[in-house]
Amino acid sequence: MLDKIANILQLECKLQQTDRLLVGVSGGPDSLCLLHLLHTSGYRVITAHINHQLRPEADQEAEVVRQFAAKSCIDFISCVIDVRVYASEHSLSIEEAARTLRYRYLFEQAERRGVGAVLVAHSADDQVETILMHLLRGSGLSGLRGMEYITLPNPWSDHIPLVRPLLSTWREDILKYLDKNQIVPVIDQSNLDTTYFRNRLRHELLPMLKSYNPGVRQNLLRAGLIMRDDYSVLQQIVDEAWEANLARQDPGYLAFNRSGILELPPSIQRYLLRKAIAYFLPGLQDVDFDCIERGLKFLAEGKLVGQVDLLAGLCLIREGDLFWLAASLDALPLTDYPAIIPGEEFSVNVPSMLSLNAGWLLQAVETPDLLSAIQESTQNQDLFQAWVDTSELQLPLTVRSRKAGDRIQPIGMDGHSVKVSDLMINLKLPKRARRTWPLVCSGGHILWVPGCRLSQWAQVTADSRSVVHLILSRDLST
Amino acid sequence: MLDKIANILQLECKLQQTDRLLVGVSGGPDSLCLLHLLHTSGYRVITAHINHQLRPEADQEAEVVRQFAAKSCIDFISCVIDVRVYASEHSLSIEEAARTLRYRYLFEQAERRGVGAVLVAHSADDQVETILMHLLRGSGLSGLRGMEYITLPNPWSDHIPLVRPLLSTWREDILKYLDKNQIVPVIDQSNLDTTYFRNRLRHELLPMLKSYNPGVRQNLLRAGLIMRDDYSVLQQIVDEAWEANLARQDPGYLAFNRSGILELPPSIQRYLLRKAIAYFLPGLQDVDFDCIERGLKFLAEGKLVGQVDLLAGLCLIREGDLFWLAASLDALPLTDYPAIIPGEEFSVNVPSMLSLNAGWLLQAVETPDLLSAIQESTQNQDLFQAWVDTSELQLPLTVRSRKAGDRIQPIGMDGHSVKVSDLMINLKLPKRARRTWPLVCSGGHILWVPGCRLSQWAQVTADSRSVVHLILSRDLST
Repeated sequence: MLDKIANILQLECKLQQTDRLLVGVSGGPDSLCLLHLLHTSGYRVITAHINHQLRPEADQEAEVVRQFAAKSCIDFISCVIDVRVYASEHSLSIEEAARTLRYRYLFEQAERRGVGAVLVAHSADDQVETILMHLLRGSGLSGLRGMEYITLPNPWSDHIPLVRPLLSTWREDILKYLDKNQIVPVIDQSNLDTTYFRNRLRHELLPMLKSYNPGVRQNLLRAGLIMRDDYSVLQQIVDEAWEANLARQDPGYLAFNRSGILELPPSIQRYLLRKAIAYFLPGLQDVDFDCIERGLKFLAEGKLVGQVDLLAGLCLIREGDLFWLAASLDALPLTDYPAIIPGEEFSVNVPSMLSLNAGWLLQAVETPDLLSAIQESTQNQDLFQAWVDTSELQLPLTVRSRKAGDRIQPIGMDGHSVKVSDLMINLKLPKRARRTWPLVCSGGHILWVPGCRLSQWAQVTADSRSVVHLILSRDLST
Repeated sequence: MLDKIANILQLECKLQQTDRLLVGVSGGPDSLCLLHLLHTSGYRVITAHINHQLRPEADQEAEVVRQFAAKSCIDFISCVIDVRVYASEHSLSIEEAARTLRYRYLFEQAERRGVGAVLVAHSADDQVETILMHLLRGSGLSGLRGMEYITLPNPWSDHIPLVRPLLSTWREDILKYLDKNQIVPVIDQSNLDTTYFRNRLRHELLPMLKSYNPGVRQNLLRAGLIMRDDYSVLQQIVDEAWEANLARQDPGYLAFNRSGILELPPSIQRYLLRKAIAYFLPGLQDVDFDCIERGLKFLAEGKLVGQVDLLAGLCLIREGDLFWLAASLDALPLTDYPAIIPGEEFSVNVPSMLSLNAGWLLQAVETPDLLSAIQESTQNQDLFQAWVDTSELQLPLTVRSRKAGDRIQPIGMDGHSVKVSDLMINLKLPKRARRTWPLVCSGGHILWVPGCRLSQWAQVTADSRSVVHLILSRDLST
């Protein structure tokens, strides 16, 4: 057993004998065995005991661990935590609260003491139970592969690994080892670590499965190993796809190139979505199957603009060639679009140049060459430029964002007026851009919706005597 | 339900309404439902019933199916099979024998009638049970993904797909559909199709799992779908790796480029090994975990030559830059090496040219220019050429393969004699080449082991008066 574990510590857990290691020790068989194995193999260990104060014998158990460490001259640290208070304060189950506090303490101590890794004593039996629990939840590979020898990053650290050297060691071998080394563990505290659900698996489901196939435990452990390797191949593809297709990244949003995402097989699209969700919600354990399928369906649908709610307010949004993921529409960057903060209003004299957000500029100039202005106006294809008849204007012009009920009488619609909001929707202007889109007004009427339409009443004609040229453009020097 | 199935038939099962379809119909709820759905959706179906003769009511059930088909003007074919006889003749369980005969009949009929697909009525419940059975066996993705809507190639045909349209339809919905359409199935014959093991899963394990998580059936079905997609990504990588690294292919062997194989991650190496094993043993259902891990370990070991037994006499063999897989060492091609069939012996006069296997030639010529021959002999680096002192030879020379106890006194070993077999091993000559390697003898003594060593006693010296030049070469014109 010592040889087997020595191999695992080196090859699977990548531990250096020169590193100091922090080992969580409850005093139960698994953790005492791990502590003894590490110490015997010459690793420099610190024993860390957490007193959960949940049972009368808790203090006594802490003392057993302290004495065990003292006898072998192993450093010992411990803490007392109040699980019940924390659980009620954070609406957690006792088990969840205990787990949270336990790992928080271990990693805080690990950080403070500069150790190379935090070690816990999950056994092969724990691994099999974990795999079964994931199976019942409908987990794919990510759950069925079980726990890893090394988890880094983990929810508690991005540089100190969480290491589980006993992951392929059965409890019966652990008990034999303890027996051989005359180590007496405290009464198994596993009920503390584990939920009622896990106990039912252990005492009810696993015996039934064994009656079908005596080798089922071994089979599940092996299946987990195979799936761990399968998962790592898929994750590499996902990481490459992420790199290749990530167009924008910010704490508040991610954007991916649509065409690249659509070329990925469904399997990789799923994992990419999961990874993107984890970017915003790193603590989230189980992402609902339906949520991911909803996302996949949206990717495939091919709507030009649109969005779908994934979970916890996180949306998947398509805008042209990009898929965005963001906590909300408001979180997306406005740098792509000209914007005016709702409620603000600016005067625009002629000539003038108004700086909007992110380098967008609104220019208004009187055109010196009337004839060519009239001609350009009739031939214009650029919706971000407009020529208007000065005599129809009330100067200064104003610029503001949309208000409820805004209407415009666009050129070419025979004097009919349309809602500005409908116009924006028809022109596939992204929803988040509509709210802050700059509108150029004259005397309280909307003159121009840049990128969309110009009002008929300001149209330049052959009779125009003076023409103002309006340009909304991006200052590429910024 | 009709809409859902219509979608599945088109999108998942890729069925054309113009195709004729052969449907296996036992008369139970699943198969009657499938038959009715297909007929109602306008597909051209043939009903095929197999009378297993295992229960008293078998004839009556066949009649029910016949009448059901007749009433709807659906073509009906049937056969009577003797499962018990076949089972005892082939040492199969009743269930295995029934399955074999059933599918054989369905595909024979499908072939004869030129139908586009064979359809069977496995339901979502069957799918979940299949996934659980694979889990208990320790299956990875290949089993946990469950059955596919389309299986092609399948064990019975490489061009007629086996199609399962009801794979995501629960039995309760099937029963509702039958009820709504006033179809009365015969007493469920599922006990026939299924093993005792499957029945225990259905009536014992699944209810327990449901008590842990009421959604467990749905979860398993979903997990299967996700893993189906994951599996297909990995299989594509495996197919590409196969293409890229396959160096030789023959019904009796496969060879892969070693360096390419070693670059693959363990997951892909495993699947590649499985695919290679399936190449030789296409019917094999479960390939042992240990067998694959043994293969993986051998790949990683880096021995220059060597072999490992995988299963059923199939070996994995390394020779230099190639990994071979073959039913046995004898199955590997000998074209790479000169060979003499053990027991045969040839005379070699001077001059002469002897044709060996696969274009290998042994030439013996007296060198006209004695001085340059002596010089070449001392400078020679090519182990497939030798110069020998004619006066030491007993002509004609003979060529034969190795015999037990063969020894040689090689040049440069101070007169010590060594076993020819040890020499060959030391020189890393592949095992399969050693047995048939040509040895050149003179008067009962080994003169030359081409590619290895020359005997000291025939060494050319400055005093040699006549020299024979021996060349073993490959005639590249063949």
